[in-house]
Amino acid sequence: MHYTDLLIPTLRETPADAEIASHQLMLRAGYIRKVASGIYTYLPLCMRVIRKIEAIIRDEMTKSGAQELLLPMVMPSELWKETGRWDYYGNELLRFSDRHNRDFCLGPTHEESITDLFRHAIRSYRDLPKNCFQIQTKFRDEVRPRFGLMRGREFIMKDAYSFDRSKEDAHKSYYTMFETYKRIFTRCGVTFSPVEAVTGNIGGSLSHEFQVLAASGEDQILSCNACDYAANIEKAQIKPGLTMSSSDTEKGQYQSVNTPGFRTAKDVCDFLSIPTLQLVKTLILTTDQGHLAVLIRGDHEASITKLQAELDLSVCDLASDQCVEQLTSANIGFAGPIGLEIPVYADYSVSSMSDFVIGANQTDVHYQHVCLADFNVTAFLDLREACHGDKCPHCEDGLLESHRGIEVGQVFYLGDKYSAAMDVTYLDEKGQSHVVEMGCYGIGVSRTAAAAIEQNHDDKGICWPLAIAPFHVEIVPLADKGEVWDVASKLYDDLRAHHIDVLIDNRKERPGVKLADADLIGIPYRIVVGMRGIKDGVVEVCCRKNAQVMLHTPIDAISYICKQVQHVEEV
Amino acid sequence: MHYTDLLIPTLRETPADAEIASHQLMLRAGYIRKVASGIYTYLPLCMRVIRKIEAIIRDEMTKSGAQELLLPMVMPSELWKETGRWDYYGNELLRFSDRHNRDFCLGPTHEESITDLFRHAIRSYRDLPKNCFQIQTKFRDEVRPRFGLMRGREFIMKDAYSFDRSKEDAHKSYYTMFETYKRIFTRCGVTFSPVEAVTGNIGGSLSHEFQVLAASGEDQILSCNACDYAANIEKAQIKPGLTMSSSDTEKGQYQSVNTPGFRTAKDVCDFLSIPTLQLVKTLILTTDQGHLAVLIRGDHEASITKLQAELDLSVCDLASDQCVEQLTSANIGFAGPIGLEIPVYADYSVSSMSDFVIGANQTDVHYQHVCLADFNVTAFLDLREACHGDKCPHCEDGLLESHRGIEVGQVFYLGDKYSAAMDVTYLDEKGQSHVVEMGCYGIGVSRTAAAAIEQNHDDKGICWPLAIAPFHVEIVPLADKGEVWDVASKLYDDLRAHHIDVLIDNRKERPGVKLADADLIGIPYRIVVGMRGIKDGVVEVCCRKNAQVMLHTPIDAISYICKQVQHVEEV
Repeated sequence: MHYTDLLIPTLRETPADAEIASHQLMLRAGYIRKVASGIYTYLPLCMRVIRKIEAIIRDEMTKSGAQELLLPMVMPSELWKETGRWDYYGNELLRFSDRHNRDFCLGPTHEESITDLFRHAIRSYRDLPKNCFQIQTKFRDEVRPRFGLMRGREFIMKDAYSFDRSKEDAHKSYYTMFETYKRIFTRCGVTFSPVEAVTGNIGGSLSHEFQVLAASGEDQILSCNACDYAANIEKAQIKPGLTMSSSDTEKGQYQSVNTPGFRTAKDVCDFLSIPTLQLVKTLILTTDQGHLAVLIRGDHEASITKLQAELDLSVCDLASDQCVEQLTSANIGFAGPIGLEIPVYADYSVSSMSDFVIGANQTDVHYQHVCLADFNVTAFLDLREACHGDKCPHCEDGLLESHRGIEVGQVFYLGDKYSAAMDVTYLDEKGQSHVVEMGCYGIGVSRTAAAAIEQNHDDKGICWPLAIAPFHVEIVPLADKGEVWDVASKLYDDLRAHHIDVLIDNRKERPGVKLADADLIGIPYRIVVGMRGIKDGVVEVCCRKNAQVMLHTPIDAISYICKQVQHVEEV
Repeated sequence: MHYTDLLIPTLRETPADAEIASHQLMLRAGYIRKVASGIYTYLPLCMRVIRKIEAIIRDEMTKSGAQELLLPMVMPSELWKETGRWDYYGNELLRFSDRHNRDFCLGPTHEESITDLFRHAIRSYRDLPKNCFQIQTKFRDEVRPRFGLMRGREFIMKDAYSFDRSKEDAHKSYYTMFETYKRIFTRCGVTFSPVEAVTGNIGGSLSHEFQVLAASGEDQILSCNACDYAANIEKAQIKPGLTMSSSDTEKGQYQSVNTPGFRTAKDVCDFLSIPTLQLVKTLILTTDQGHLAVLIRGDHEASITKLQAELDLSVCDLASDQCVEQLTSANIGFAGPIGLEIPVYADYSVSSMSDFVIGANQTDVHYQHVCLADFNVTAFLDLREACHGDKCPHCEDGLLESHRGIEVGQVFYLGDKYSAAMDVTYLDEKGQSHVVEMGCYGIGVSRTAAAAIEQNHDDKGICWPLAIAPFHVEIVPLADKGEVWDVASKLYDDLRAHHIDVLIDNRKERPGVKLADADLIGIPYRIVVGMRGIKDGVVEVCCRKNAQVMLHTPIDAISYICKQVQHVEEV
């Protein structure tokens, strides 16, 4: 394509509100434009990237046996009320009324729709298994959209849903998708890691996220330095087990200490000149099973997600200040387990503690020299976030290492969460009815484009992976007429004849401007055609990523580019 | 693809609320499912059709020099307020608020968004011309969605927008799109006609619709039987000109006649025993230029669209009963031009009338033996709908013929309607600023699929045009094992190796069921493999559309199919 035919409105300055590289570069290089908070126009260069990612996804999904369909983006409230998510999903679900005052929402995900379809379409075991996918614009009314396409409100997603006869078959479908996702992201040319994940408001009992590793990632992931265990921090397990302390304080030996106005673990420990791991934090929570207290070692972070999973809670939030003050008879910041009349759950790490500090349920007072015998613990559980340096829960000697990642895909085994709620059944060979087992599988298409940039850029611009670049190669003629233009123009025609996506910079601009723009928009290969090279019968082939420059005859340049493209298509 | 891998939930009964063939057949043959009024899921067979139509559109649009982008479906109200359409567009524009109570709408069309993009992206004449298109799900909150995909609320559309330096260049872009649309619909395999059209709430001064001819079409179109003039009835012109009557009544000779309770032209004429073409109807209208009266011959229909265009009215509606009664001092149904103190516009056909009947502005009274000299006519204009048998306005001897059509595409020359309102300018070679000229161009992608069915079906099911069929060929083996299955299976593999889209019916069903389903879903070619044929070394190749059956060896069957597909791809 000729550069002047494309709309590439590059910017000289980095827009002030763009914090991360992909957001800055997509704006600067003319890939996207903001229309409203979290809502963007995808310009032609961006659409070429999106269409290439979609083509890879469509190809691999189809090869895996899945079929493409399209569910509506505008969905009636009735379906969401059936599963309870109309109330439960929160404000991210954008709700509105049509002209006849009927309630609808914009689809943030489509479990209800597909389940409704299948309960009417599926009759017998002969209709199973099925796996259907769609590639669609979704809308989630994020409270704080940010980072451009990384966390937008309107975004492009591939979502797939599998339907199986049994748990075993559903697990098979799950792992087929798992392998399909590995192939998709490998073909996209990004470095990624599948990690264990929590299921959030999609639900289900087994899930993996596919994380593109990048320092700017919003997600913290932990991976073992010895085995292949990896998990989102929300999910990462702790090596389980109790190591009950042989207490070096005895029951009832604890003493009050005044801690006026010191509410946080750090403040109290600084005041008492003890390390934070010698304090036990007490959190009060409001849940659908009533109020609970959770004990966590002072240097650890509680994981509400784990607590929810361990106790099967559907509602679990930090209690209000008012509620805490009522339960502890003290100002907030001085809660402790002694004398507290609600169930107390303690993290495993607390089990090995002795001679520690806790709140006294009395304003401005803590207890010190406390031991576990001084209060009742309902159960010891895994209730804290794992952290860098924790022992791997899956192998003998490994330690967990912390990384940042961008979640570009997630697979869920849903079991019968939706199929039971919406009554999707099939008759087996004997005419007996069973509930189908489901899985669901998402890929953030637009986010994958952004994540690829986070992982592949330098201070000059984007360095696209070849498979998803808007063009394979950009020809930069150093003149816009004469022999230079003729050689460049012939190269352009010849490359197109070889089915190479080629952009030629036909603008009347100085070489410096053309080369800087080429760096910015990030086409993987560049062929610079200049008079000096022509005299020697060569053109300059540059690789954007490693800046390597090769001198080739035009014919060799073409076969070099063809070889690179062929290589990527054969992944 | 194997039949059992696809979700094809066929129905035996035609759903009661489906009125037209495409709606009935898409439901029965498992192409779509209704989710809510005017909102459908596109099942896998349908998606294959949609993707093929999209591919043809994308290919032709790209060849024409247009580039693909994607504007948001959720748009902020500010843009629509700038052009005034936030108020003017009516209830089809679905408006809602986000979690921060900001106003948004779902995009029914995207003139505002693209214009906003270009006013920031265009600086100089060097940035022009540009033409950008998108293929996107749109939403229009139709008051009465009906006919399945034909008039849905959520639908897939291709919309394109061109930006040019001058009116001449914009007209060039317009006719480039006109020719591109002809190629697109030709390649889709539908019989269509481009007709002149009104511009409605998109605006602009020149427009053509692309109409797929089908008896069930919602649009009435008129085409000349001698030249290539064709227009939507809303737009179709009348051969202009006044033929002032040589009156056979003289001024002031008219007489009152009692017409108690007879309000309509037909009732009055029946009562007076005269033909309706001897009566003149008087319509009272409320417009932004005040009240008007329009005179129309009794057998004709007034065209408010033409009145709006002739007098450049932005508001024009029938006056309320109360208003009519006040202006005429009579009950509704007895209005007439004599003594009426508002401007009176008459249709050309009235100019040749004499000795006619009109309302007397007095309840239950008409005047007869009226002539044109009896009242003032502000102007004679083209104010009625053309009809079958009218003279062609463009040629000497042609007569207009009436047809029904389905509008699948429309092109608009917009001029500066949006670019002036939203200030899209460029600097020319001399540094002088000009407003850009725009055009916009839509294709109903999902509606094209439905229109193709309206035009191509019989009482057994759909007969897809080859280019947009979900599969090119369906293999129906009359047994699911043994030699029959082996031959069928080898045919399947060989056809796939030739890049033919092939479906094989691998279900354990009776031949009658398979053949009936094949007729229903409408794959253009069918290869029936049975034991009897195998003994003679042949298979049966059937053409769905004309039911022609050919006996071929498997090798010849493959080359026959390949030839048909190749032929269609070369259109």
